[in-house]
Amino acid sequence: MGARDLLARLQQPGDSKILLVVADGLGGIPGDRRGSELEAAATPNLDGLARRGVSGLLTMVAPGIIPGSGPGHLALFGYDPLEYDIGRGVFTALGIGFDLRPGDVAARGNFCTMDGNGVITDRRAGRIDSERARELVEALRSVEVPGAEVLVEPVKEHRFLLVLRSDGLGDAVDDTDPHRTGEPPREPTPRNETSRATAEAVASFVKQARQRLADREPANMVVLRGFQALPDIPSMQSSYGVDACAIAGYPMYRGVARLLGMHVVERGPDLDDEVEALHESWSAHDFFFLHYKATDAAGEDGNFDAKVAAIEALDARIPRVLELEPDVVVVTGDHSTPSQLASHSWHPVPVVLAADTCRRDPVETFGETACLGGGLGQLRGEHLMALMLAHAGRLTKFGA
Amino acid sequence: MGARDLLARLQQPGDSKILLVVADGLGGIPGDRRGSELEAAATPNLDGLARRGVSGLLTMVAPGIIPGSGPGHLALFGYDPLEYDIGRGVFTALGIGFDLRPGDVAARGNFCTMDGNGVITDRRAGRIDSERARELVEALRSVEVPGAEVLVEPVKEHRFLLVLRSDGLGDAVDDTDPHRTGEPPREPTPRNETSRATAEAVASFVKQARQRLADREPANMVVLRGFQALPDIPSMQSSYGVDACAIAGYPMYRGVARLLGMHVVERGPDLDDEVEALHESWSAHDFFFLHYKATDAAGEDGNFDAKVAAIEALDARIPRVLELEPDVVVVTGDHSTPSQLASHSWHPVPVVLAADTCRRDPVETFGETACLGGGLGQLRGEHLMALMLAHAGRLTKFGA
Repeated sequence: MGARDLLARLQQPGDSKILLVVADGLGGIPGDRRGSELEAAATPNLDGLARRGVSGLLTMVAPGIIPGSGPGHLALFGYDPLEYDIGRGVFTALGIGFDLRPGDVAARGNFCTMDGNGVITDRRAGRIDSERARELVEALRSVEVPGAEVLVEPVKEHRFLLVLRSDGLGDAVDDTDPHRTGEPPREPTPRNETSRATAEAVASFVKQARQRLADREPANMVVLRGFQALPDIPSMQSSYGVDACAIAGYPMYRGVARLLGMHVVERGPDLDDEVEALHESWSAHDFFFLHYKATDAAGEDGNFDAKVAAIEALDARIPRVLELEPDVVVVTGDHSTPSQLASHSWHPVPVVLAADTCRRDPVETFGETACLGGGLGQLRGEHLMALMLAHAGRLTKFGA
Repeated sequence: MGARDLLARLQQPGDSKILLVVADGLGGIPGDRRGSELEAAATPNLDGLARRGVSGLLTMVAPGIIPGSGPGHLALFGYDPLEYDIGRGVFTALGIGFDLRPGDVAARGNFCTMDGNGVITDRRAGRIDSERARELVEALRSVEVPGAEVLVEPVKEHRFLLVLRSDGLGDAVDDTDPHRTGEPPREPTPRNETSRATAEAVASFVKQARQRLADREPANMVVLRGFQALPDIPSMQSSYGVDACAIAGYPMYRGVARLLGMHVVERGPDLDDEVEALHESWSAHDFFFLHYKATDAAGEDGNFDAKVAAIEALDARIPRVLELEPDVVVVTGDHSTPSQLASHSWHPVPVVLAADTCRRDPVETFGETACLGGGLGQLRGEHLMALMLAHAGRLTKFGA
């Protein structure tokens, strides 16, 4: 029995409220400095949570594994990311609020630049602006392929969503995106027999897309990745008995939240706006996920100081958040994004949980090194959900 | 999906180099002293790795389980030792470079001493020398059994290899070695129907061996253990995308390395010789396993001071090793061998990993107690491989 199945069995009702603040990419490393971004930042309010709470470090997938945003968030919500292995196509569809139906196969598309030899020179076509991409999406909407309806939606900048709608389409199709420049797009190869028709439809789509974009500059081709049908995933309501509300400024995180049946408040990405939305939503739900993107964005940009500033900006909003008096408040990340690596990393993510019911530990500051001595120890991210529910009095005893 | 399957999917090419130094039986306990052998030893260079790296403790199989050398090494190479349960027969065959073929059943043999009542008085026949053992092996080579070809090979001192070659031989046969003196050899009992013919062939071999050795002194009998056919185990190359090279002075460790498809450099057991072999091999591979036996040998002998000296000898070679500037260097053991117990033990094994990409921790000396506060925490040995690959930039992100 997985952790989530156990919680489904042990859930009990209550009027307690749980708040999970996810500072995306929160964890860091010292590199040449004395500490990480979180350790360098002045965080009196997060430190206050650490003093009255219990801290630790989360490994979202497994030691050494670099979590994508999807797996990282699934773990935080108590879903084993190795069991629910969700592709980019589905996240993209959910993120823009697309009505993905059972049996649809979704893929994430990029407009890209191809040279005269058919070799990709820019996988993002110079990050063309969203308006231009919408025109290109229009051009692709008239594509017809045998045996499936074709749906194309713009996402943001060079990104789009492709959905093939038909009965009996398999989704085991390899990416056409070679994931690097200097190579031609790949053939959409099926990995099983039921996905052969899907691969043929994709090949037909790509061929026609190439013709329709041939005279466009710089976006004269498409690459596709993450083919997947809507997975069958139980809701947070059924899993934990909570009425969950997500406040997130970016499509990807709204997509994860919708996948799990959360009510999504489309506010942000400005943090003040998100915090006010939290206040406005507070009476209507009992589990709140607040997503803060700026920490990850600064880390991805390789900007140590900007990440420090983003953390301090979060810290400054903590008092306003605590005015709501959540019974359980957790601050953590979905993965680490050390600015020295300018990318997601495998390093465990610091976490602090504050509640009247917690066993306080000696941790007095919120930081990676301090969390090593925390009462939660090092644990799989998947287990955080049970800890939040338990501290909120929302779990009954296991066994007599 | 197991950890190794996940890595197979996430591997990415790179020109980074990883060095894994295994000090066999490294871990210890304080006993009546103030610290273990590692803590008593002067190890300025290993302490230097601890200061710039990240430390922890590895449990190779499960808490309380005493790992054999095979399982311990399999775990270090990322293979779950409970999934790949490999017997001594196979390791012995691989260790001497024997061409074990699919379907062969291998067993490790000992020449032993039996008294007039058929009771074993010395399981190693006074550790007879290798030359004498070769003569005895010659005497056994003429044994013929019904339904299988008999192959006998000398190993070292009292040890030999028995291989039965035929079609359809099962390998579920109990050891004839009672694993203690004062008892007669046991019958080779089959544990399933497909192994009945194997057990009969073994019984016939043992009966004839007893006859042929009857007038030899002190080696007048044989005991056999670890019957096993060649397991189907994926290579390190296919699992992780690394070109692995093993430098090991003893057959057993070369055997493990060959089983996983590593290139084996037959140098050592002298450590200086092994380190020079490492230098000579450095440009040709990207993952290196250097095996150091002296720590375990001293522990098995129950000699605390000798184990301290063996650790200090390793420490003294660390600077020469670091001249190679590996991107990731790890020093650990395959299990603990406390000299107070004079045997392998279940105690977690200290590990240090140093790389520019690591999250340094407060650990300043390399030792069991200090490692308790290390950033790697306590984890299954199986996860070390992912951590080495991640720190070397050889894993891509999991999920979108």
